[in-house]
Amino acid sequence: MNYLITGASGFVAGHLIEAIFKNDPQALVTAVDLSEPDYYFIGNSVRDSIRFAKVDLLVIDDLIRILEMANPYFIIHLAAFSSVAYSWKKPIDSFKNNLNIFLNLLEAVKQVNPEPRILSVGSSEQYGVVSVDKIPLTETEPPNPISPYAVARVAQEYMASVYVKGFKLDIVTTRSFNHFGPRQDERFVLSSFAKQVAEIKKENRKPVIYVGDLSIVRDFTDVRDVVKAYLSLLNNGISGEIYNVCSGIGRTLKECLYGFIQIAGIECEIKKAEELMRPVDNPIIIGDNTKTKERTGWFPETPFEITLRDTYEYWMSRI
Amino acid sequence: MNYLITGASGFVAGHLIEAIFKNDPQALVTAVDLSEPDYYFIGNSVRDSIRFAKVDLLVIDDLIRILEMANPYFIIHLAAFSSVAYSWKKPIDSFKNNLNIFLNLLEAVKQVNPEPRILSVGSSEQYGVVSVDKIPLTETEPPNPISPYAVARVAQEYMASVYVKGFKLDIVTTRSFNHFGPRQDERFVLSSFAKQVAEIKKENRKPVIYVGDLSIVRDFTDVRDVVKAYLSLLNNGISGEIYNVCSGIGRTLKECLYGFIQIAGIECEIKKAEELMRPVDNPIIIGDNTKTKERTGWFPETPFEITLRDTYEYWMSRI
Repeated sequence: MNYLITGASGFVAGHLIEAIFKNDPQALVTAVDLSEPDYYFIGNSVRDSIRFAKVDLLVIDDLIRILEMANPYFIIHLAAFSSVAYSWKKPIDSFKNNLNIFLNLLEAVKQVNPEPRILSVGSSEQYGVVSVDKIPLTETEPPNPISPYAVARVAQEYMASVYVKGFKLDIVTTRSFNHFGPRQDERFVLSSFAKQVAEIKKENRKPVIYVGDLSIVRDFTDVRDVVKAYLSLLNNGISGEIYNVCSGIGRTLKECLYGFIQIAGIECEIKKAEELMRPVDNPIIIGDNTKTKERTGWFPETPFEITLRDTYEYWMSRI
Repeated sequence: MNYLITGASGFVAGHLIEAIFKNDPQALVTAVDLSEPDYYFIGNSVRDSIRFAKVDLLVIDDLIRILEMANPYFIIHLAAFSSVAYSWKKPIDSFKNNLNIFLNLLEAVKQVNPEPRILSVGSSEQYGVVSVDKIPLTETEPPNPISPYAVARVAQEYMASVYVKGFKLDIVTTRSFNHFGPRQDERFVLSSFAKQVAEIKKENRKPVIYVGDLSIVRDFTDVRDVVKAYLSLLNNGISGEIYNVCSGIGRTLKECLYGFIQIAGIECEIKKAEELMRPVDNPIIIGDNTKTKERTGWFPETPFEITLRDTYEYWMSRI
């Protein structure tokens, strides 16, 4: 089967490609990104089945050319500027590299061949600040975007719906909640915690960990479960429908941090860093994954402690 | 008072500028558009108070320069690609010239001087297809965009809200329902009717009028009342709030067409034209203007028959 993956050099894409070849060793993957991926973790046996193409998704003609060459059956659109903080700093750039690239992809697919199924990855940020009685969040909850990033994601979802109904494209949409695991960039909170804990363990830093607000509650899923959800949705999701990808379990950041500390067996001081506090933030986000589970049979199978351990060990191997 | 108007060569802008100088003969207007306006209908006494600047709103540096020069107190953002049909044909172009230009404007205002009050003009298209029990539509109704154009308008509204809350910009947002009057382009339905009726009256065409679905119900307001609503909202609206601009009265297109026929005193045949039928359309759209009226004291004061007559007479003078 032919897959085309945008944002192919990113954290999620690496895990997705591993999962694809595990399920389907005969797969052909066209990996599209601005910078070449380093798939050091992927076995040599399948390396020849991955073709990298450097494409700026803002240039639709390049996108059309690569679609003609790749002839994908599935398209997984992971390319995004997914930092909320960046979207506050550079709203125009963030918006273009979320919504405009997605619209270019849809137009290119429409023009080249409208048949491939597309996975449009959205975000729990679309829900915005919600009252506690709306928790856990179901897909019927109306959007309430409170950052430029979230506005782009909401527009992406609406645009997907318009292209399904108006142009008969085949698009399944997710609202993906927080995910983490090995190889995630340290700008993300749990990776930052794991790296700091590993540094202390290796005595590379003073035993002090810098944190933001530890009381906030998030719904974390192992990235390896997330990519399984994406493949299940490609195979079993209904075009035009929206699916939460989440664990359904809320955890405070404090609980996660102490999980890493316990695994490492270290003692340390925890200090608040002003620059890690956000001006506006959701105190609690937990999703309801019933619809996704019922449609696909998927469920988040990795115990939370395993993801903590694997993330910690990734950083131990890197330092 | 200094005004900056984008989309200044358009139908609404002409009426807005007339209204501005009627209220405030000392006004200074910076008129921004891609093509120079022809304000033949505006008195010579105020012509020197209008400065035209050719600016492509997709080029933010030009926008910044003009904001620095104009130093506006009020900004009325009328620039848009407001055709739903065009957005189906050229979704990318339509989206850029609705959402991306708006985002550029907000960024430019933020960078130059965040003080001016901005009027962000939205559309009743944001409501999409609604069930009859939701009629008349209030501002609390969640969005349901069913065209690329409507998605851009919904994203515009969300982005306005993000810039009010996150960057303290001063933005009042409308959802403007159908409006018509003298000088409107004949691509719009009531102008098309008026022009055809006038042509028959002048014996410039066979007595046949081509129409789409005459049973649909829309909420029409005289454009001269619409621009009064805009000025009232600039003066009295609350930043971050959304206001319907509409008459609150639903009229079938059939009723409107027969209104023109009666004014002209002609006899004619009415023929359905397939190309004027839309694949998906709202059977009925009527807005609730209570919030706008209560906040501003504005109300739609022009009798419908007067707008019909003035529109007809405009076309009589043009043919």
